[in-house]
Amino acid sequence: MNEDRKKALQSLKTAKGQLEGIIKMIEDERYCIDISNQILASQSLLKKANLIILQRHLNHCVKEACKSNDSDEKIEEINKILEKILSK
Amino acid sequence: MNEDRKKALQSLKTAKGQLEGIIKMIEDERYCIDISNQILASQSLLKKANLIILQRHLNHCVKEACKSNDSDEKIEEINKILEKILSK
Amino acid sequence: MNEDRKKALQSLKTAKGQLEGIIKMIEDERYCIDISNQILASQSLLKKANLIILQRHLNHCVKEACKSNDSDEKIEEINKILEKILSK
Amino acid sequence: MNEDRKKALQSLKTAKGQLEGIIKMIEDERYCIDISNQILASQSLLKKANLIILQRHLNHCVKEACKSNDSDEKIEEINKILEKILSK
Repeated sequence: MNEDRKKALQSLKTAKGQLEGIIKMIEDERYCIDISNQILASQSLLKKANLIILQRHLNHCVKEACKSNDSDEKIEEINKILEKILSK
Repeated sequence: MNEDRKKALQSLKTAKGQLEGIIKMIEDERYCIDISNQILASQSLLKKANLIILQRHLNHCVKEACKSNDSDEKIEEINKILEKILSK
Repeated sequence: MNEDRKKALQSLKTAKGQLEGIIKMIEDERYCIDISNQILASQSLLKKANLIILQRHLNHCVKEACKSNDSDEKIEEINKILEKILSK
Repeated sequence: MNEDRKKALQSLKTAKGQLEGIIKMIEDERYCIDISNQILASQSLLKKANLIILQRHLNHCVKEACKSNDSDEKIEEINKILEKILSK
């Protein structure tokens, strides 16, 4: 597994641990604002992981597809992801 | 537990399940774009859960604090969360 | 006009100036990435202005409504804005 | 000018008109929540314009660069924009 994926994996595992903690906070009737702050923290981790994955994809998969003159489909995929991100 | 918290809990549990799936996708060297789409889906669930928690907080904790003339701290907390959300 | 509104006004006037610049960039067939970067910059200014306006509202209008035991409508308005922001 | 740029231009011109209106609302001491709603509306227009510009860029400039085996710089630019967008 490449270094980028390892970094993304680490962020996601941390986010998962946070989610487990947040679930427990709700079950333990903890204060809403504390829960909200934790959710915001795990969202940041997901964004970080997603950026790593997408930049890795652009730098390798898309670049290679360009070199082998087969980039149209790859670029269409990026367009769709961009649409989802920007309509968030 | 109130209905709102149950709904938020459900979203978070689903998001956690998705995260487990995404972690596996990375370990299984699955395609980047598929992973990215899954991350975006779990982000939406986290946002949904956070909105439920915050609206519940406003409708109950903040309203009650207003009624007992003790709202300053509660409003300051909302201001801080709003700052985090809007600087995302 | 209070200081907060003056600050928000300043951000919005700067954002408007940027928009005029971006419109000209498009008319002058300028490079897409440069245009995109400018749009992102003006979005940040709008977010900044919106945060100032909302925090001012919470610290004054909502607090005053709490003190005069008339906060329900104000809190409902914050809930609706929060919903729009979080579903962005 | 291509159709995509015309559409983006239209969104930006509408957003600029809204900004002029918001500036007037602040000067006329209009209600904060109404101002905030207007800012959110113009932010959506900016996002829409930015998506049109970026998708156009991917579908033309980046694709052409791929075909002429000159895509590295273009892909680096997309990576940087993606970083800005995802860290918003």
